[in-house]
Amino acid sequence: MAKEEYGDVKFFGSGGSPYARRVQIALKLNGVKYQHFEEDIRNKSELLLKYNPIHKKVPVLVHNDKPIAESLVILEYIDETWKTHPLLPLNPYHRALARFWSRFIDDKVLPAIQEAAWTVEVKKREKAIEEAIEGLRYLEKELNGKFFGGETIGMVDIAAAFIAFWLPLMEEAVGLKLLTHDKFPKLHKWSQEFCSHPVVRENLPPPSRLLGFFKARYASITASK
Amino acid sequence: MAKEEYGDVKFFGSGGSPYARRVQIALKLNGVKYQHFEEDIRNKSELLLKYNPIHKKVPVLVHNDKPIAESLVILEYIDETWKTHPLLPLNPYHRALARFWSRFIDDKVLPAIQEAAWTVEVKKREKAIEEAIEGLRYLEKELNGKFFGGETIGMVDIAAAFIAFWLPLMEEAVGLKLLTHDKFPKLHKWSQEFCSHPVVRENLPPPSRLLGFFKARYASITASK
Repeated sequence: MAKEEYGDVKFFGSGGSPYARRVQIALKLNGVKYQHFEEDIRNKSELLLKYNPIHKKVPVLVHNDKPIAESLVILEYIDETWKTHPLLPLNPYHRALARFWSRFIDDKVLPAIQEAAWTVEVKKREKAIEEAIEGLRYLEKELNGKFFGGETIGMVDIAAAFIAFWLPLMEEAVGLKLLTHDKFPKLHKWSQEFCSHPVVRENLPPPSRLLGFFKARYASITASK
Repeated sequence: MAKEEYGDVKFFGSGGSPYARRVQIALKLNGVKYQHFEEDIRNKSELLLKYNPIHKKVPVLVHNDKPIAESLVILEYIDETWKTHPLLPLNPYHRALARFWSRFIDDKVLPAIQEAAWTVEVKKREKAIEEAIEGLRYLEKELNGKFFGGETIGMVDIAAAFIAFWLPLMEEAVGLKLLTHDKFPKLHKWSQEFCSHPVVRENLPPPSRLLGFFKARYASITASK
């Protein structure tokens, strides 16, 4: 496809945001050329607020002046618009499963991980750790190939990017170990496969910056305890 | 379509659940014949727990022995499997919007309405009322036809069924008025259109039972204050 065939594509993201990185990875996998607008999340641009007045968050994709928000909604849009690298399988049942697991990651696994990492109160933290491990167990069981998407990266893999890349750095920063090779051999292997995929690797934030961010956050939380 | 062409379709629902009713309405709009399993949510069946071990909730759709959970995921499956009554538009951008607004209802509007109705603490309640009204305002603005789906009922209409039918009864039970004709003329008219659609009307729970349930819940909350 020549560049003009993609139409006018604008992407609003923010370096460290795992949700924005999902969109970036999906665009790159599909070879879509786009204009990148980097947002400072403490000082959001007028354009971002115009395009996403409801959630006021990255990521936003603007295709031929039409804005779309919410990362999983954007992934489906990318899948239906550019078809170089399919993100969802063709079979309706497998599509339903991909949607189910992507939502499961967003609604259950990621909130539990966040709470496990950032909650100081011991009982709450322990409960969150349990929930996070339970969620990861379901994903471990679901993973039956190189990727959740089979031989190639699909929507669930992209939704789970946080687990592959952000989580180990977060674990290091807060002294927590959830995704052990021991308990989760398949997820562990997957996270390495995923992060070393050339398109993914080139579209992840610098680990040292992320680690610094997590360490600073943990220090501020434990100091204010 | 002859009955056997639909395959073996099992639906697990529970009378009062707005999420389960979404699936029922979508199945009926598509003329899908199914076997109805009514769940007692205080005493869930072995079958329900087998088919939805993760969330342990209705609705579940089982098509040719393959279970699918989560109402919005099921709606998309119905839309991709039986095509008598399309629930999503064809255009990718319009599909993205339908998905965005359906999630907006689930993630923002319904939680705010629930909190506005059932929170006794004044400040929290007032904040929730504000959020609920803000959410309804966005929906009011988005509604530009007979239905969110245009001339026919689509995914957003079905996702918003709670607002059309459950909300007015809840308002009556707890003495709250959110969806006024005054503030929301389009939504108000829509709710009447939606509830009087023959397929919807036949697939809603008896209002008196729902009202009784809401009143009892409110009494127990205010008593334990």
